[in-house]
Amino acid sequence: MEEVTLFGAGTSRFTHRVIWALKLKGIDYTYINEDLTNKSALLLKYNPVYQRVPVLVHGGKAIAESVVILEYIDETWPENPLLPKDPYKRAVTRFWAKYFEDKLSCIGEFFLTTGEKREKAAKDCLEMLRTIEEQGGLGEKKFFGGDEIGLADLVMGILARWFGVIEEVVGVKVMEPQEFPRLQAWIKNFKEVPVIKENLPDHEKMVPMYKLRREMLMARTSA
Amino acid sequence: MEEVTLFGAGTSRFTHRVIWALKLKGIDYTYINEDLTNKSALLLKYNPVYQRVPVLVHGGKAIAESVVILEYIDETWPENPLLPKDPYKRAVTRFWAKYFEDKLSCIGEFFLTTGEKREKAAKDCLEMLRTIEEQGGLGEKKFFGGDEIGLADLVMGILARWFGVIEEVVGVKVMEPQEFPRLQAWIKNFKEVPVIKENLPDHEKMVPMYKLRREMLMARTSA
Repeated sequence: MEEVTLFGAGTSRFTHRVIWALKLKGIDYTYINEDLTNKSALLLKYNPVYQRVPVLVHGGKAIAESVVILEYIDETWPENPLLPKDPYKRAVTRFWAKYFEDKLSCIGEFFLTTGEKREKAAKDCLEMLRTIEEQGGLGEKKFFGGDEIGLADLVMGILARWFGVIEEVVGVKVMEPQEFPRLQAWIKNFKEVPVIKENLPDHEKMVPMYKLRREMLMARTSA
Repeated sequence: MEEVTLFGAGTSRFTHRVIWALKLKGIDYTYINEDLTNKSALLLKYNPVYQRVPVLVHGGKAIAESVVILEYIDETWPENPLLPKDPYKRAVTRFWAKYFEDKLSCIGEFFLTTGEKREKAAKDCLEMLRTIEEQGGLGEKKFFGGDEIGLADLVMGILARWFGVIEEVVGVKVMEPQEFPRLQAWIKNFKEVPVIKENLPDHEKMVPMYKLRREMLMARTSA
């Protein structure tokens, strides 16, 4: 067995995608928590392009970008697959993972703006959520890929915790539960998976941290 | 053999990724050219989320998003692979494909803005090109994945034709050949692959089309 190391950071939503995948696969790994205000020389060496977490190092070889890491994990350790076997179902899973990746910047915008910009970001998030609710294929299925948790679920895990924390910090509700019955059921299913339940940052602890982070980042951008 | 149909449009750079992949694999397919000002009911049915080309329909099942389609093609028809076999090399290929996907909006910005916005877009494009030039692993290798053309090359094919057309239409050179010797060599290698050579829109024909498109789109956004 070659050594597996994950460089991550605190409550990072992208790091958690990889933590969940490794735990679902039952892979032993060493976790290195990066201080993002003072990144290690190793992180910069392993991810020179983006210089950010998460980075997975396996047998001395580094892989960056959370979705690329998830695909690597699934190909390297096939047990408890993150992607279905059938190429068409794999394409559907990748389509929704990519859809969310392409749209999720609205969440950061919503978190770090005010006034008209925040209203625009909230509208974009609402449109994204409605598209997933209505066309994402949830409803008959427990998860995006079927009855088992998979790649698209891990990618969208942000909706199951981080988004609610951000709504509370901003003080504006976007995902009204009654408007999104399928996503609500999915969030419930997602949180009931033991690996997720045991590795989901705590809402109550996150709120004050994200409040502070918002104040610091907004002070910096408006300075 | 189940029927394969590709919905594409004229000189679309995203459609061409899929055309090249199908031709490299030697797959027979029917091509349906969409009029993007009057999209067909079938296109809207097959890609309800984005309502855009390209869409691949195989045995009645529709797949949207060009990179998702490339992965599907590679999994369905394994001959002439677009991705290497080794999971780490696959991850490197996917990393660079994703890097380009995440950054390429600078090209559209550069095409459709003026003044400070265009300068900012040109700077972003330059940074992207320098990152690919210096860290993309070209130099020792003919293509991003090694000696054979593959997924990252098809994704970045935009740099081998569309970007030069846009530079000419805008009247500003960003990718100075002497600054990018590795990318220049890659462009040459890319265009020498018979399937690319035979299926690359003509520069001279594209320039007046893109001039007209720029005028129309800029008139619309400034109206």
